[in-house]
Amino acid sequence: MSRAAVLGAGSWGTAFAKVLADAGNDVTLWARRPAVAAAIRERHGNPDYLPALRLPTAVTATVDPREALDEAELVVIAIPSQTLRLNLGEWARYLKPDATLVSLMKGVELGTLKRMSEVIAEAAGVEPERVAVVTGPNLAPEIAAEQPAATVVACTDTDRATRVQKAIATRYLRPYTNDDVIGCELGGAVKNAIALACGMADALGFGDNTKATLITRGLAETARLGVALGADPLTFAGLAGLGDLVATCSSPLSRNRTFGEHLGRGETLEQAQAATRYTAEGVKSCLAIRDLANKHGVEMPITEQVERVCHEGLDPRVAVGTLMSREPKSE
Amino acid sequence: MSRAAVLGAGSWGTAFAKVLADAGNDVTLWARRPAVAAAIRERHGNPDYLPALRLPTAVTATVDPREALDEAELVVIAIPSQTLRLNLGEWARYLKPDATLVSLMKGVELGTLKRMSEVIAEAAGVEPERVAVVTGPNLAPEIAAEQPAATVVACTDTDRATRVQKAIATRYLRPYTNDDVIGCELGGAVKNAIALACGMADALGFGDNTKATLITRGLAETARLGVALGADPLTFAGLAGLGDLVATCSSPLSRNRTFGEHLGRGETLEQAQAATRYTAEGVKSCLAIRDLANKHGVEMPITEQVERVCHEGLDPRVAVGTLMSREPKSE
Repeated sequence: MSRAAVLGAGSWGTAFAKVLADAGNDVTLWARRPAVAAAIRERHGNPDYLPALRLPTAVTATVDPREALDEAELVVIAIPSQTLRLNLGEWARYLKPDATLVSLMKGVELGTLKRMSEVIAEAAGVEPERVAVVTGPNLAPEIAAEQPAATVVACTDTDRATRVQKAIATRYLRPYTNDDVIGCELGGAVKNAIALACGMADALGFGDNTKATLITRGLAETARLGVALGADPLTFAGLAGLGDLVATCSSPLSRNRTFGEHLGRGETLEQAQAATRYTAEGVKSCLAIRDLANKHGVEMPITEQVERVCHEGLDPRVAVGTLMSREPKSE
Repeated sequence: MSRAAVLGAGSWGTAFAKVLADAGNDVTLWARRPAVAAAIRERHGNPDYLPALRLPTAVTATVDPREALDEAELVVIAIPSQTLRLNLGEWARYLKPDATLVSLMKGVELGTLKRMSEVIAEAAGVEPERVAVVTGPNLAPEIAAEQPAATVVACTDTDRATRVQKAIATRYLRPYTNDDVIGCELGGAVKNAIALACGMADALGFGDNTKATLITRGLAETARLGVALGADPLTFAGLAGLGDLVATCSSPLSRNRTFGEHLGRGETLEQAQAATRYTAEGVKSCLAIRDLANKHGVEMPITEQVERVCHEGLDPRVAVGTLMSREPKSE
C-alpha cells in the first residue's frame, strides 16, 4: 500500500480519492475549507459536491498541505486551474523527492498560455517527465457511483505512466497509458469551451443534429490547435479527445454544459455564476485558448464565439446562428 | 425548377421531400401504401411518421413508381435497405437517362455484403459515378422542423456531387461535398449497430461515461473496417462519421437507439419489434457488417456483441459488461 495525496476536494478530486483508495492506496485529501475536511474525516462524505458518496476509510482529509503531502509518492492535483501556480508554489517544499505529480485539471493558464502540466513542472520545480495527466470521459458523479469507465494516463515517461496506471486501476475504472501529454491536455481544455456552446444550443432549443455538428467541428478545431502545438492527431479520436468531449457535451451532470445553458437563456456571466454558484472552467480557459490559437494562427470559430458570449456580451443566439451558417471551406 | 422523385415515404424520405421542395424542386414522393400517398397529396402531411410536418405544395405523392420517376432528374431512394435490390430492379426501366440516383439508406445488403450505393448501381444498371449518397447528423424530425443542420453529399463524380449539393441546399440544411463514398456509407451503416449498443447501455442504467466510451470505440471500429475497404480515415472524424454517430447515439428520436433500449430491458427481438412497430436498421445490418469484418479480418467488438444480443440471445448485460471490461490492446 502506498501513500497518495489529493490536493483539492471538489467533485473530481473527491471521486478520485475514492478511486485511489479502492485501488489500495492510503489517501489524504487536502481541502481548502475546514468544514469539508471535517466531513470527509469524520463522516466519510463530501455532501457539498457528491452527496451520494460514501468514501472508503482509507481516505482521510486535512486543511494542512504539509500533512497531506507527507510521504506521498503520488500527488494528485485538482484545484482551480488559475490558482494552481500560486498554490503549488507554496506547497512545493513539502513534496517528497521523486514523487509523481498527477494533474486532473483541464485548462490553460491565462497570460502564460501554458498547459496545466507545464505550470505544475514550473511551480513545483520538477522535470516535466515527473508530471502525468489523467483525463477521459470521467464525469465525477458517475465514477463516484462506480459506473464502468475508461481513462487515459498521459506522461512522457512511460514507466511512470505505467506506475500511475497500476495505482488507479479498479474494477470500475480502466486506465490506458499514452505518451501524448500535449494532445491529452488540449482535448480536456478545449472541450469545456465546446460544452459551453452545446449548453447554449440546448437552451436555445436547437436539437441533436445541431449539437452533433458542434461536437464534430469542435473536435476538428481542437485537433487543429493540437497539431500546431505538436500533438499527435490520433489522440483526438480517442478517449481523451472524442470520449471526453462527447461525455461533457451530452451529460446533464456537466458543469460547463449546464453553465452554457444559463448563458443561452440570456443570463449574464454574473447571473449565471450566481445561479450555479460556480464559474465553469471553460469561461476562463476560452480566453487563453483563443490567445493560444491566435498565437499559432489557428482558426477556432466555436471557441471564439464562446469567448465573445462570455466576455464581450455577444447574444448567444447570434453566436450559435453564426456557427451553423458560416461558409464552409471543406468538410 | 427541376423534377425530383423520392422513393419511400418513411420519416427521412418525407423530410427530404420537404428539403427538395424548399430548395426549389418539384417533388413526387412514391409511397407503398395508398393511404400515405393520399394523405400527402390531399392533406400535405404524413401523420404516421412526422405528425407535426406540413409539406410544401410542391410535394405530391403517388403509389405508381412510373408516375413518380417520370422526367425526374434527381431520384432519391429511401426504402428499407434489404428490399432495395428487388424494388429498384423493377423500377429501373422508368429512370430518365442520366438521372442522378441519391441514396438516403444506411445499411449493408445481407448475403452480398454490398453497400447501398453498390446495390443501386447494380440493380438500376447504372455506372457507380451516377450514384450519390447523402448522410450526416440528420435526425428526420429535426430536419422537418427546420432545425439548422449540415449534411454530406458523397459521389465519385465531383460535378454531380456539386449539382446535388445545389439541389438540396436550404436555409436550414447545409450540404458539404465529399468524394469518399465508401467512408461516408460505412459511417452511416455501422452507427446503427453502435446506437443499438448505446440504447442497451441506457436501459441498463449505465451513464454518460460508458456511452461516450462506446461512441469512441465504436468510431474506432468503424474506421478500422473503413480503412480495410479503402475509405479515407479522415472521413470518420467528420459529419458522416462522428457527426452522424453522435446524433444517433444521443437522441431520443433515434430509432436504433430506442430499439436498443427495448433490448436492454430484456425484451426479445420479437417483443421489441411488437413494442416499437418497426425493425431497427441496425438489427439486420449488424449481421452483414460482422460478415464484412470477418471477411477483411477486422475486429469489431461492439458490432459483434450487438449481433449476439439481436440474433443469438445473448444477455445485453453480459454484452455491455464484456465491452467495458475487455483487455485493451492500446488506446
